[in-house]
Amino acid sequence: MINEQYKSMLGGKSIIRELSEYATARGEEIGYDNVFDYSLGNPSVPCADAYTQKMIALHQTMNPMELHGYSPSTTIPSVRQAVAEHLNRRFGMAYSMEHIFMTTGAAGALAHALRAVTCPGDVVLTFAPFFPEYVPYVQGAGATLSVVPANTSNFQINFDAFEQMLDEHVMAVLINTPNNPSGVVYSSQTLQRLADLLMQKQQEYGHDIFLISDEPYREILFDGKEAPYPSRFYDNTLSCYSFSKSLSLPGERIGYVAVNPRCTDADILVAMMAQISRGTGHNCPSSSIQLAVADVIDETSDLQVYETNMNLLYDALIDLGFEVVRPGGTFYIFPKALEADANAFCRKAQKYDLILVPSDNFGVPGYFRMAYCIDTEKVRRSIPVLRNFVETEYGG
Amino acid sequence: MINEQYKSMLGGKSIIRELSEYATARGEEIGYDNVFDYSLGNPSVPCADAYTQKMIALHQTMNPMELHGYSPSTTIPSVRQAVAEHLNRRFGMAYSMEHIFMTTGAAGALAHALRAVTCPGDVVLTFAPFFPEYVPYVQGAGATLSVVPANTSNFQINFDAFEQMLDEHVMAVLINTPNNPSGVVYSSQTLQRLADLLMQKQQEYGHDIFLISDEPYREILFDGKEAPYPSRFYDNTLSCYSFSKSLSLPGERIGYVAVNPRCTDADILVAMMAQISRGTGHNCPSSSIQLAVADVIDETSDLQVYETNMNLLYDALIDLGFEVVRPGGTFYIFPKALEADANAFCRKAQKYDLILVPSDNFGVPGYFRMAYCIDTEKVRRSIPVLRNFVETEYGG
Repeated sequence: MINEQYKSMLGGKSIIRELSEYATARGEEIGYDNVFDYSLGNPSVPCADAYTQKMIALHQTMNPMELHGYSPSTTIPSVRQAVAEHLNRRFGMAYSMEHIFMTTGAAGALAHALRAVTCPGDVVLTFAPFFPEYVPYVQGAGATLSVVPANTSNFQINFDAFEQMLDEHVMAVLINTPNNPSGVVYSSQTLQRLADLLMQKQQEYGHDIFLISDEPYREILFDGKEAPYPSRFYDNTLSCYSFSKSLSLPGERIGYVAVNPRCTDADILVAMMAQISRGTGHNCPSSSIQLAVADVIDETSDLQVYETNMNLLYDALIDLGFEVVRPGGTFYIFPKALEADANAFCRKAQKYDLILVPSDNFGVPGYFRMAYCIDTEKVRRSIPVLRNFVETEYGG
Repeated sequence: MINEQYKSMLGGKSIIRELSEYATARGEEIGYDNVFDYSLGNPSVPCADAYTQKMIALHQTMNPMELHGYSPSTTIPSVRQAVAEHLNRRFGMAYSMEHIFMTTGAAGALAHALRAVTCPGDVVLTFAPFFPEYVPYVQGAGATLSVVPANTSNFQINFDAFEQMLDEHVMAVLINTPNNPSGVVYSSQTLQRLADLLMQKQQEYGHDIFLISDEPYREILFDGKEAPYPSRFYDNTLSCYSFSKSLSLPGERIGYVAVNPRCTDADILVAMMAQISRGTGHNCPSSSIQLAVADVIDETSDLQVYETNMNLLYDALIDLGFEVVRPGGTFYIFPKALEADANAFCRKAQKYDLILVPSDNFGVPGYFRMAYCIDTEKVRRSIPVLRNFVETEYGG
């Protein structure tokens, strides 16, 4: 008999995907230029040219037996070394090759990190608003995801709620900074307080509590600010990364886990991840793509457009009277809806061909997400439409 | 606390990998040219030039946003279509795009097929000799692998033992033809008898029994013969494929599952696999590599060397008095050892710098595997060494 658990998942279509499909279909009716599609978090700038040139050069000049050969099960040593050196340079860490495990994007990174530091039945805590795919990621590892309610004043951490929920069953805490969907970057104060609380509770409960830090938006930062690196604040940290956004390579599935050198069992966690791969069919990301990203590790795509778009939208939203926290990075913004029911709000917006994602699946009712990884010209054209929608529907 | 299950796997190093590492270390001492390393099943011919040219062209000419964009969760439609048409052309099947799911190699294919058609606790049967990684693959899906003893006369199926073990708990049967490690190709008679028995037992037990057919060696065939396509014999078949061997791309991790159009739930199995991916972090193979293999779907590397090597080794082994079944394909041969303890036999061979893999992990005691994906010149030089080993140790 086929597996009913996976069969039952067929009904549960992601709201984001549903809205994106609606936008595409609507685009076929009225021209996609006339649909203001803020649904999907798909990079809107081309990949870094250095990556393209490196892939061409690898295929033109490298011995194909080496280029396309099996990775060692712990992934390619020279690539792991390049990632370690990059992180050390940038964040003053002390990684060596042994702490780096290359993965098929952040999804692969989280799948390995979660399986390595939790056992079936453990509780993993995350913070609203959160990326809805964390639910299947954590369930896939056999653990249970519990969501700490949001601190809606600034979308930093709601520490009162967190402390209450951080009981002895919690074996890992999953954060995402810069954050999808809020665009907020956790401050040094937030990360220090998080670390202090985790260290206190580790001692109290007599077991490790691992911090799994999902950082695919690490390079998309605004106002010239740097984002504090979570692993610097807390030793038991596994940093999960993807090149999908920084290099605009979402389909190429390349990322990594970086285990803090002072993490418990730091010397064996990557070897464990290689064992985890055997059961999931992961078995290393593509060799040629590992080699190419290692060579362009300090490059990014031209990410400036996201900041331009954010400023346009943030100013327009404020001007229209929305309550909204200014994003520090990513290509998302997360304003409060103009009525309590975010689904109703987004359905009304749809009449104006504004495709907004209601917030319920992100763990916060009454908000909506706009993914502004679209052309700036379209963002500009969407602003009068947004104004018309607000004034008509809410008597703005 | 870290996951003890994966930690405990750290001790269990694969004998193949251990021998391969020994061969490399020994090579550093005496020159790798002097080590007759038959340990590892790694393609020894370069990838098809058409693949290299296609990858270069894709990176030079295709819009990077399309080339590197997210795959749909069921993988890229044009690629699925190309695979369906290829299989239909070649095997007279009636696949459409909906039956094809692209994966990260055969490991990814098996991970998805096993999760789709078994539930935790189910029994999966396979046939000795078998690829030892089937153990973690099946365990990863939460099922239990049971191994039907070998038919050592010709390494087709031992039907008496199979029928006895095929009880109502068996939900899937896993075959591998052409076979690693025996090199044997299942005949039409074998596949027909297998299908007949499965159909009879399906009726008797009142539930489906799925056939998962692992076929990474499908293109490496000898004596001008074609291999019968298992899915033609039995409707409830999921065919798992990898381009690792046919195109010599083991590190690029690209393959697929093809669901027989007449399989139970054929219309939803691929959509289920897309759901399975969410929990394992698989999330589609690399977009550019999907597109490249679709374009060269009818090509292979120059695979002729494997047949040349097989003929040299087979004749030599027969001449030396070994009991051995002539391979019909792959790059493996699986002779009977000259003493009951294959480990002792292989340890003795090591003194002659002959690296042979004892058969115990393949589920058959007393045999050994030679992976002859090495230079023909080295195969030739190994024959007098093999003769010396046999004559000295076994008074041949």
